[in-house]
This record gives sequence, C-alpha cells and structure tokens, in this order.
Amino acid sequence: MKKRRKLGRGVAVVGAGMSTFGMFKNKDSKGLFAEAFVEMLASVDKSLDPNDIDALYLGNFTNDFFVRQSHWGPIISDLIGLTPKPATRTEGACASSALAFREGVFAIASGFYDVVLVGGLEQMSERTTEEVAEGLALATVPYEGRVGFTFPGVFALLATAYFARYGAKREHLMNVTIKSHNNAPLNPKAQFPYTVRDMMNAKSKRAREKGGAVPTWEDEKDFLRDPKANPVVAWPMHLFDCCPISDGASCMLLVGEEIATNFTDDPIYVSGMGQGSGRGFHASPDLTFFEATRYAAREAYEMSGLEPKDVQFAEVHDCFSIAEVVTIEDLGFFQPGHGYKAIEEGQTRLDGSKPINTSGGLKCKGHPVGATGVSQLYEVWTQLRGRAGKRQLPHTNLRIGGAHNLGGTGGTCTFTILERR
Amino acid sequence: MKKRRKLGRGVAVVGAGMSTFGMFKNKDSKGLFAEAFVEMLASVDKSLDPNDIDALYLGNFTNDFFVRQSHWGPIISDLIGLTPKPATRTEGACASSALAFREGVFAIASGFYDVVLVGGLEQMSERTTEEVAEGLALATVPYEGRVGFTFPGVFALLATAYFARYGAKREHLMNVTIKSHNNAPLNPKAQFPYTVRDMMNAKSKRAREKGGAVPTWEDEKDFLRDPKANPVVAWPMHLFDCCPISDGASCMLLVGEEIATNFTDDPIYVSGMGQGSGRGFHASPDLTFFEATRYAAREAYEMSGLEPKDVQFAEVHDCFSIAEVVTIEDLGFFQPGHGYKAIEEGQTRLDGSKPINTSGGLKCKGHPVGATGVSQLYEVWTQLRGRAGKRQLPHTNLRIGGAHNLGGTGGTCTFTILERR
Repeated sequence: MKKRRKLGRGVAVVGAGMSTFGMFKNKDSKGLFAEAFVEMLASVDKSLDPNDIDALYLGNFTNDFFVRQSHWGPIISDLIGLTPKPATRTEGACASSALAFREGVFAIASGFYDVVLVGGLEQMSERTTEEVAEGLALATVPYEGRVGFTFPGVFALLATAYFARYGAKREHLMNVTIKSHNNAPLNPKAQFPYTVRDMMNAKSKRAREKGGAVPTWEDEKDFLRDPKANPVVAWPMHLFDCCPISDGASCMLLVGEEIATNFTDDPIYVSGMGQGSGRGFHASPDLTFFEATRYAAREAYEMSGLEPKDVQFAEVHDCFSIAEVVTIEDLGFFQPGHGYKAIEEGQTRLDGSKPINTSGGLKCKGHPVGATGVSQLYEVWTQLRGRAGKRQLPHTNLRIGGAHNLGGTGGTCTFTILERR
Repeated sequence: MKKRRKLGRGVAVVGAGMSTFGMFKNKDSKGLFAEAFVEMLASVDKSLDPNDIDALYLGNFTNDFFVRQSHWGPIISDLIGLTPKPATRTEGACASSALAFREGVFAIASGFYDVVLVGGLEQMSERTTEEVAEGLALATVPYEGRVGFTFPGVFALLATAYFARYGAKREHLMNVTIKSHNNAPLNPKAQFPYTVRDMMNAKSKRAREKGGAVPTWEDEKDFLRDPKANPVVAWPMHLFDCCPISDGASCMLLVGEEIATNFTDDPIYVSGMGQGSGRGFHASPDLTFFEATRYAAREAYEMSGLEPKDVQFAEVHDCFSIAEVVTIEDLGFFQPGHGYKAIEEGQTRLDGSKPINTSGGLKCKGHPVGATGVSQLYEVWTQLRGRAGKRQLPHTNLRIGGAHNLGGTGGTCTFTILERR
C-alpha cells in the first residue's frame, strides 16, 4: 500500500503575523494573539474579507495549567469574530502549532474548506521557574518526567552522547549561541535582541560604573566560559545553551492553491510536510539523533520531491544548543557528526551556505511553546517574501525554506518545506 | 466564495473498539486504550496489517492536570507500536475525540494518508469530585469558570430558560433519564447498566433487609422525585440528570473510500461532518439552544445532502438531561420547544421513530470526556453494522445514524453522519 505522500489539492500561505516575543506583565494570550492577527490581516496585500475564514486551528501546550484555562479554540474564535465557525486546538507539547498548521493544510487539501487560519499562543511568564519546569516536564514521556528528568537534563544527555560519539566539545556549542545572538538584533520581534558582545559590553560598563575591575574579554567565548556570566544548568548545558521562558502568539492564513492569487501576487506554497513521533530516551537505541525528526523529514522530502540540499535555509528547534546541532544532521543538511563542524565553519550563519535560525532561533527570538511552530514558518515565509529587513537573505534566488519543530523530548517532530515559485 | 462543503476523497470506517466505561482503580489511560485497540483490530473482518496505519489522532481533555502527563499522542503511538509515525492530540474539552475523528477524515480526504487511527481517552476517577469540578470548569469560557459557574450551574440555567420559554417542567427531564436507563442494561460496556426500576428494587431490598419500612413506588418518577434518592445538584438538575465521572477509551479505523473493501465487506461511510464554536452563555442572546450545534448540523447536512428526517437514529451529548432535549431540537429532529414533548411521547426510545442514545448515553454509558466523541461514533457504527446485540435497532433498513458531541458549555460542537450504503 506504499505510495508517495501527496495532497489532492495544493495549499498556499497568503498572510502571516506574530506578536513580539518576551515576558509581558501586561499582555495575556488574547492580547498577544490579537497582535499577531492584526499583522496577518495587514500582510494580505490584495484583499481578505475576514468573513471568508472558514475555520481556525490553534496550537497551545500549557495554558491549561499555567493560565488555568483550557479549550482555547472557541475563546480565540470569539476574539477574532469567527464564531460560530469551527476552532480546534492541537497539542504536541512544544510542537503544538506546527500541528495546527498541518491540520489547516489537511482541511484545505481535503476540499472541505478554502480559507483556514492557523496559529499558536502561549502565556508562561506569570509562573515561577519551578512551576514552568514542572509543567513542561509533563511533555516528556512518563519514564523521564517522573524521575525528575526535566528538559535541560535530557538535552544534556543528548550532548554528552553526541560529544562521546563524535568528539565535539562544549566550545562547539558556543558557536550556536554566538550565531543566534548575532542574528537576533536584526529581528525586531526577538526577546533578546542582543549579541553576546553587547552583553559583554554591558557587563564591562556596569563594572566601570561601580568602580570595579573591568573584565577584559579576548573574545565572545571567554564570556561564555565565565561561570558567573554563563552558569551551568545541566552540564554541558549552560544558561546560554538554553532558550528562555516566553509569552507570544503567531498565525498564518492558508488558502487553496487555485485561489491564492485572489489574496496576493506572491503566494508561498506548502511544498513538503512531515511529522513523526518518538518513544523517549529510555527506549532509544541511540541518543545522538531524533528518530521522529528523521521520519518527519522523510515524509516532507517525499511529498516535495526535494532533497536536503535544495532547502536553502531553515528554522530549526534549538530549545537547547545541542538540539540545533543534531537537527541539522537529522534533516540531512549535514552528515551525522558533521553538524558541529559546519557550524564552526560558519556555514549556518546569515552569510553562510545554509543559514539556520535567521530569526535568532528559540534561544534569542524566544520560545512561547505553543506559538513557536507557526512563528518558525512565519520566519521562513517572511524571508521568502523578502520582508525580513536587516536579516533578509539575498532574495533574488531565494525559493525554498524549511521549518522544524520539536515537542517534548522528541515525542513529536515536524518538518515543513515552503516554496516560492 | 460560498460553496457546498465536500471532501475530495471519501472516507470509510472499517473498524472500531471501546473499553468498558467506568471508574477503575486498576486501569490507566494506556490500559484502557489497549482494550479499545484490541477490539478494533478484531473488528476488522477481512484483514489489517497494523503496519499499514499511517497516523494517529487522539482526543484528550484532562490528562494534563488529572494525570499530570501531557503530550499523549506519542505515548499512545508507542503503546500500539506505531512509532515513529505521527500522533496528534486534539482538545476541544468534552468534544476532544470528535475533533480527532474529524482530523483523521481530513488527513485521508487530503490524499496524504490512506489508513488513520482516531480515538480518545480519559482517566478521571482518581481525582476527588472537587478536583474534577474545578478541572472541568477550565473548559468553560473565562467569564463562566471564574465566577464559579461550573457545569451543573450552566446547564441548570439552560433548563430554567427552556422551561420558561416552552412550558416544560422538571418531570419532562425525568423522561430522558428513564429512557437512557432503560437502554443501558442492554449495553455491556455501560458504566451504569441499570434501569431506574432496578435501583428502586435495590433500595426496597435494602430497606427490607434492614427491617425498615419498605418504600412503595408508584412508578419510576416517584423514585426520581425522592430528594434522598435523587438530590438536587443545581436546580432543576438533580443527581439523575447528570452524567458521571468516568474512565475509558475508544478508537476507530478510517481508510480511503476506494480501499475500504480491502478491510471489510461492510464499510460504513462518512456522509456528513460539521463543527461549530460558541461564545459562552455570557454572550448568548438566547439560552435555549446551542448556536455551535446548529452550525455543525448545517455543515454536516450540507456535505451529506441529507435532512434531519433522514437521520434514523443518533447519539447526542447528554452531559445533562436538558442537553439532550435541546440538542435534538438543534439538530433539526424536532422543532424548538417540541423536543421534550417528543421524548414524553416515546419517540426517542429504542422502539420510537427517532431512537436517541441507544447506548444509554453519557448518563448511563459514562462520560470519560476525551473518549466520548469517538465512543458515540462507535455506537452509531455498531448499530449500522448490526452488532448492537440486545439494543440493536431493526437492521434491515438501518442506513443513516448521527453522532453529536459538545465541548465545554457549547464552545465546541460537532455533528457527524455515518452511512451504510
């Protein structure tokens, strides 16, 4: 019964929006989603009657227990005036809104709907770090969370296994952090729009103002080596290897391919789409990759007919620096054990041959978990449309970008390829 | 852009299973789902290679906070040997697994997958009644839950508004309860397989054994009028107007229409499908119906080309007795204000012209919220296949049945029509 995965009807992205990501005392999930929705409306450059939106898919992970409110589909459909049209929540931990995107694509490709809004939201910053750590641990498989194996611990294990297998060192992970922090100031919606050098300078300035000894930094890695500036979380994961706690929202407007030019002269098409599931680390024969990512990538390449080399740039799920290294291998961009070398050579930088996380990634853009998947697709869409401002990749021949989202400890992974024709 | 809702590729149900519903000390979500899955496998009467299952959609509402474990998609994909194939959780409060069913249909209708497992699960009985009440209240819209307006209160309001508008009385709701309890003993998977008369007799027997005065009951309504046997919860909702707390799981196997006969000689087809969202009671201009149900019904009838009179029987979401009355009106089976009269006339009984909740309904079959939607479809499928045992409707001309699922206080409603051709 094996066949090539394909859709009976093509789907295009004709609009997108995201809120600024950060920790906000005065914005809740509804306000953040409204911000993203208003930008999406404005981004549809020909015309959109909001009454033509047929349905909403919304990714969210933690609002049940962090905000004490479930069932966000109808709350958001009410907010944007969509009631009584359908609104469905998807949950796949940190991959929740990549699942919303996927269901939106299926709903249109099935022929049932023509115009579907997909998005995600998360409101995390009201909770203490301990509450967030405990809450997020619910996304791990039962064997992990129940023995206190929270996210930094699991990804630290991934890192040490990878180090042992391939000879990489903590120094190599710093290259991921420095690269992401170089991109972030170019993204006005990033939670941390600072380079590592900016932070070094700020620290020197504070020391000078207090009349203390001014630290001298040979380079950015010296800053990251300083245990006061960058304390250990779960070795080898230090503070700057870990993405932050964030609030935020994102959304995209999907339409049937044949009506896309009613909305814009520059539609971006869904070229490939894949999703996989994972069993958790207790049952993994190998801790240096994610089987679910590899499966998702296979599905997406199969549908698109593309190969990894065809994907010109990508957003990948760098919840921890090691995840970015492993993922660019799992997606086939680099051979296993070669990702960290490619990063060191600068291949994943903005001016490299395979730019990764031009947005600043989860590390610097922020990671409001339910919003992340669609926000990654937002970045790919923004680059393909040539609207990425100071972080814009050379646009003339920019045609194909990918977005990889990872939930839990690899329990749910997705890979989506967008294409400008 | 208005068009008739239809699918580019038809979808059939070729297998189904559900666990027994109840309150189980020694069964967890995984064990319950395994029970349903094993029955589903056995129900596929020609052949099924489980390796042909392409993906899983799983509805769950409360396991995040009742079981302290999120991200159930990959846990269940692991359980049934599906890893690394995709597994997606849907959440729409008590309508969570109807949403899973719908996404499974879209995924196949899109052409991307051929064989999809959909289902739901819920494990609630370890928690206290207070914890459950608080947890479920998270499904209401923010204005309701935060002022302590939990489910019985909201549905009591629906009942009093309905009474005031149409002249119905509490006595009429007892007809719903008595009818559901008459069906339940015919369903071996029901949580309460007892008629009201069974309970009267048990009470008489206990009184006799204790040497006390033996109550005499003129009829079943006398039992329901007794405030000791049937205490008030939120007037006019008494204990026997309310569904129980339950554990359970359910699943169904969906395949592309053109390959259905590879699996069975008796496929049941998805004829119509609809979903709507609601704003909550604070914003409803009228408290005697659910706008989301009406919208869902319109979509489903539009897709199927059928009318309410064509639907020969249905499972509807009787979380409270009044919900059944209102829903059979919202689905168009009876005119507004006439549902309670039709029930009194016996039209919704097993031998009536429009049997409703042949399974015993949520009231007697049980309501493990995330499992309910697919369990309703399981009952419709079972009736259409002629496998409903003692509660089987006359089968020769039985062709079309419906299932209605309601989440929260009407925030998410679905209606699905299955057809035997």
